Amino acid sequence: MSRQEQRVVDLRSDTVTRPTQRMRAAMAAAEVGDDVYGEDPTVRALEDRVAGLLGQEAGLFLPTATMANQVAIQFLVPHGSELLCADDAHVVSYEGGAAAVHGGITTRTWHSPDGFIEPATIAGMIRPGGGFALRTDAIAVEQTANLPGGIIHPLDRLTALHTVARRAGVGLHCDGARLWHAHITTGTALDVYGRLFDTVAVCLSKGLGAPAGAVLAGQHDLIADAKRLRLRAGGAMRQVGILAAAGLYALDHHLQRLADDHDHARSLANALSNAGVVDPGRVHTNIVLLNLTRTRWSGPAFAAAAAKHGILLIAIDHYHVRAVTHRDVTIEQIVHAGGVLQRLLTP
Amino acid sequence: MSRQEQRVVDLRSDTVTRPTQRMRAAMAAAEVGDDVYGEDPTVRALEDRVAGLLGQEAGLFLPTATMANQVAIQFLVPHGSELLCADDAHVVSYEGGAAAVHGGITTRTWHSPDGFIEPATIAGMIRPGGGFALRTDAIAVEQTANLPGGIIHPLDRLTALHTVARRAGVGLHCDGARLWHAHITTGTALDVYGRLFDTVAVCLSKGLGAPAGAVLAGQHDLIADAKRLRLRAGGAMRQVGILAAAGLYALDHHLQRLADDHDHARSLANALSNAGVVDPGRVHTNIVLLNLTRTRWSGPAFAAAAAKHGILLIAIDHYHVRAVTHRDVTIEQIVHAGGVLQRLLTP
Amino acid sequence: MSRQEQRVVDLRSDTVTRPTQRMRAAMAAAEVGDDVYGEDPTVRALEDRVAGLLGQEAGLFLPTATMANQVAIQFLVPHGSELLCADDAHVVSYEGGAAAVHGGITTRTWHSPDGFIEPATIAGMIRPGGGFALRTDAIAVEQTANLPGGIIHPLDRLTALHTVARRAGVGLHCDGARLWHAHITTGTALDVYGRLFDTVAVCLSKGLGAPAGAVLAGQHDLIADAKRLRLRAGGAMRQVGILAAAGLYALDHHLQRLADDHDHARSLANALSNAGVVDPGRVHTNIVLLNLTRTRWSGPAFAAAAAKHGILLIAIDHYHVRAVTHRDVTIEQIVHAGGVLQRLLTP
Amino acid sequence: MSRQEQRVVDLRSDTVTRPTQRMRAAMAAAEVGDDVYGEDPTVRALEDRVAGLLGQEAGLFLPTATMANQVAIQFLVPHGSELLCADDAHVVSYEGGAAAVHGGITTRTWHSPDGFIEPATIAGMIRPGGGFALRTDAIAVEQTANLPGGIIHPLDRLTALHTVARRAGVGLHCDGARLWHAHITTGTALDVYGRLFDTVAVCLSKGLGAPAGAVLAGQHDLIADAKRLRLRAGGAMRQVGILAAAGLYALDHHLQRLADDHDHARSLANALSNAGVVDPGRVHTNIVLLNLTRTRWSGPAFAAAAAKHGILLIAIDHYHVRAVTHRDVTIEQIVHAGGVLQRLLTP
Repeated sequence: MSRQEQRVVDLRSDTVTRPTQRMRAAMAAAEVGDDVYGEDPTVRALEDRVAGLLGQEAGLFLPTATMANQVAIQFLVPHGSELLCADDAHVVSYEGGAAAVHGGITTRTWHSPDGFIEPATIAGMIRPGGGFALRTDAIAVEQTANLPGGIIHPLDRLTALHTVARRAGVGLHCDGARLWHAHITTGTALDVYGRLFDTVAVCLSKGLGAPAGAVLAGQHDLIADAKRLRLRAGGAMRQVGILAAAGLYALDHHLQRLADDHDHARSLANALSNAGVVDPGRVHTNIVLLNLTRTRWSGPAFAAAAAKHGILLIAIDHYHVRAVTHRDVTIEQIVHAGGVLQRLLTP
Repeated sequence: MSRQEQRVVDLRSDTVTRPTQRMRAAMAAAEVGDDVYGEDPTVRALEDRVAGLLGQEAGLFLPTATMANQVAIQFLVPHGSELLCADDAHVVSYEGGAAAVHGGITTRTWHSPDGFIEPATIAGMIRPGGGFALRTDAIAVEQTANLPGGIIHPLDRLTALHTVARRAGVGLHCDGARLWHAHITTGTALDVYGRLFDTVAVCLSKGLGAPAGAVLAGQHDLIADAKRLRLRAGGAMRQVGILAAAGLYALDHHLQRLADDHDHARSLANALSNAGVVDPGRVHTNIVLLNLTRTRWSGPAFAAAAAKHGILLIAIDHYHVRAVTHRDVTIEQIVHAGGVLQRLLTP
Repeated sequence: MSRQEQRVVDLRSDTVTRPTQRMRAAMAAAEVGDDVYGEDPTVRALEDRVAGLLGQEAGLFLPTATMANQVAIQFLVPHGSELLCADDAHVVSYEGGAAAVHGGITTRTWHSPDGFIEPATIAGMIRPGGGFALRTDAIAVEQTANLPGGIIHPLDRLTALHTVARRAGVGLHCDGARLWHAHITTGTALDVYGRLFDTVAVCLSKGLGAPAGAVLAGQHDLIADAKRLRLRAGGAMRQVGILAAAGLYALDHHLQRLADDHDHARSLANALSNAGVVDPGRVHTNIVLLNLTRTRWSGPAFAAAAAKHGILLIAIDHYHVRAVTHRDVTIEQIVHAGGVLQRLLTP
Repeated sequence: MSRQEQRVVDLRSDTVTRPTQRMRAAMAAAEVGDDVYGEDPTVRALEDRVAGLLGQEAGLFLPTATMANQVAIQFLVPHGSELLCADDAHVVSYEGGAAAVHGGITTRTWHSPDGFIEPATIAGMIRPGGGFALRTDAIAVEQTANLPGGIIHPLDRLTALHTVARRAGVGLHCDGARLWHAHITTGTALDVYGRLFDTVAVCLSKGLGAPAGAVLAGQHDLIADAKRLRLRAGGAMRQVGILAAAGLYALDHHLQRLADDHDHARSLANALSNAGVVDPGRVHTNIVLLNLTRTRWSGPAFAAAAAKHGILLIAIDHYHVRAVTHRDVTIEQIVHAGGVLQRLLTP
């Protein structure tokens, strides 16, 4: 790491982590095969491992969590039918409109003022089909919820939503890009979360720190369809056990340490609590959402000002910036960043 | 009308009206040509007339308001981009998912407890694009709002939304299937409504009583694109001046009489006000929405019971049924229907 | 008809015919209902009549043959699968790319130098699916074949193709926009043609002279799906018995007279045979294809020159123009047109 | 390599190659960053290197050649428009129908009996748009042509096609999954091929032996659009310099050695020439196509019989199997395979 880099504290996203030497060694040593023919043993091992962790029957490796989400959604929702999700969900916001473009899927969205799901509200949006109205075929939920600030949907609400979906005969997908973080914070077993859903997408490249890759888990009937959709999306890679090895390594060595990222996020939040821009009670995981409404800053201006001091953030919209802690940020950097941001926020 | 038919009061929709003898004569006498080549003078006359009424430059005849809406949406929103609308809007509920299927358009929806638009809420949903998030390219508004009960969005809110859209550089579409009714109730000129929007779809086949047809109005640049989309949708008909003649006749003879339908709706609402299922203050036009939550009836059961007595209604969902007044229902039939429904609702 | 119009001989297409007084009377007298609710008796009568003529179980009225074709194709070919057709077929050439846009359907096309289908060639293009290759789910054939000049595929070839399709488990659609003409020329019963196909689309607005409308015929299971697709396309019209009445009238009064159009086409072809631009042996029906390769004319220039003399033709491409005979062109006009075109072609 | 594996000669595809120790070391040592933010230096280096080799301005790394092809096609062909390609092209056969599903793109296909492009035929298929017909916006060509047996389109034909495309204002895409092989066989510089096309997709995972990855090259204006389409497809990976490093290594060390694969393919073809199933003059690169029409074998039966003897082939269709040589097959294995296959083919 150069001196220049040392001074930079990159809190834009947990996607920026770089593989460690040991993770690189694991990739270099991976046994591989042609995964399009189903012959990569490391990919198989990762798929089985993740499926097992999530209490699902089978898994499929894909290049990104975006592809995993979209494949799941297209599996659950037939062409021309309907998906419900939050109006700030990643699947309708940051995935290029793929549900509509690739799947012909109509999205209707709910708005949650506090970011938490309201099972009764969602239940009221479900349409049974049968007449001239579109039929609702699936609901997608993000755990943790990214744009609301990495908050964790409580297990009882997820369970209630599971019941709603089952009764209505509607599929339930978990965009679990950061499901790992929910598990580490709450101690709820991954499979307790996982079993509530028909399909679960998890990302190996965010908090876990693998260079790329995601796994989609579900029941056996998911896999053939998901492979077909992965091929169409251009995600059928060959000796991709190289990447899967990084995923397996990360599950062994980087899962428990997410607790450090959560500590760092809380430290940062505490450092900024006097400035009135963070609600520490909503810092559940590794995301700190700064609400600048009552400051002199706009989101983009604050992010630009912080960047001049080497603190990289992302402006979510006009009033909010996001700081994300991850494996490549130390507590010293967090303390430094907290100080810089605090000074910027001092009127 | 047979005795059987006399006893039946069809309040399912204003789409059930049949053309009058004079409207039939107008159709039979229409001068026509091949409209695909732009050579049908009656179609031209209707297109120009409607465009003029709505304060728009040009119009295009289409077989249905559904096609008019979807063509407008695909004109305003590029493939892969985003539309905002109410979560109970016709365009996302009853048009077969065409925006997503045909246009690759992502929909994000707002929920309005009382059915009225909230310009500030909608403004907050607009995404400017530029980063990784989808860009919002248009907003669609229904006037009158069908599922909320035919209510009329106040002009000041529409004007505020127009300002929101202009500032954000976002298109604004009016699903004006029953815009005629808003005009008759409020006295606001059609072009005052029309000029607030980039595109306006109006229906000739609902309250106006033509057998089929709709007109999409907008600026000149709309037309070439709309013709291309109409061809793709299979809506490029030939000597369709036959239907356009009915539309012209209806504008001459059936527009002012919508006031009768509105009177009838209020009569029906008053007849049911004791039963506590209708809020008369929300009966703005020709739709009466019955909320059965506090009765012993479900929507479908009530509609079935009413049908046994010859009163045809439509169940919107588990708790609501809808009665729609129109040209083919007399005040006597309304009084009769009110009595029947009242008796059914008496505990 | 004005003097101006008398002088104009419109041979651009048989779509330009205008309804007769008697057809208009039939429309004006039609019993109608709301066809979206399945309550229009005239539409029902037409659907049943056409289905019966074609040896199919059921029919569905749609605004255009384009919509009928595309609904059939989307019924036969699942989203993401494959259709085979001629490379100059109407369904891939003149229907706005709807199969791909609306249905996500891949088209692979055959080229036939003489325009006739080659069942063995088509058989060789069928892919059974199962591996990584797309599966072929349907074949579409045009009868008569428009761009090749209204030629008629021989019954034995259609029968052979039927066998090919059945053996391969692949659907077979007939774009029968001018199937009537094949029937009149060959004397082969409509249902003999019709039974060879899973779905047949016929047009009421071309040779038959109705102002608009088409019928899609097939087995019972087609109808529910086709109604759903018609709704999505924006083709679910209401009291459309008005148009269906024109179709019924045309079947009664305009079917047999297509023989006149065929005579007229042959007359025109004979008039031009000395010029070497028409092969009279290929004038099977009401289309005369002029091949200008060996003349001084390009297609567009010839069409423009003819138009100056009041003879309206359509340039198909750089080398070909098309003349189409129909109910609104008399033998006198044909003789006149033949003379004008002959003079233009004289070197 | 186990004894079991030694006995197996895997000629199914050149996709089965496994990374060498040195390639693994290069991956393990790669400098990486978050490529979604454009910060992975190894990805950048690979993109620039490939763009330079192909005589193009810029390159973009994607997970697979399928995604590279589909992104290019969607860049060149607007939604609802048309692409021309061979009827056995990979882009319409083995990419899940993505052009139609994701891009709404109509494909019209040519059939070439010998697999070589015929520029005049293709020129005749181009439609200029303007009327009611779809417009042709791009042509895709495969170099080498996979299903015809890895044959190389001659440079003069490609040049003629380039001229055709330029004159018509139509884009030209090269599916260059095995363009490397054409370059090695003909000695024609990669950029001489590359400059003939608007977009070129090359694969790092087939002959070159990288575990995964492809590069799409074109002019600067391609990149922003291609990144947007890559995001939508789910191909925006993060520290993917790990894979790019394998690509760079392969360009340094595995490109020239493709000549060995070509020698091996010729050896195998010669061994089978007596059996009359291979035309040695058509073995241009690393693919040997066996035509079993005049033998007692069907394709699938022959592939199954060969597999029992440890020789893995792929049945292309009922009459053809394919053998592909690659880095992980030695000349000894080829000799062994030739003997086994010869014996199976002896009547």
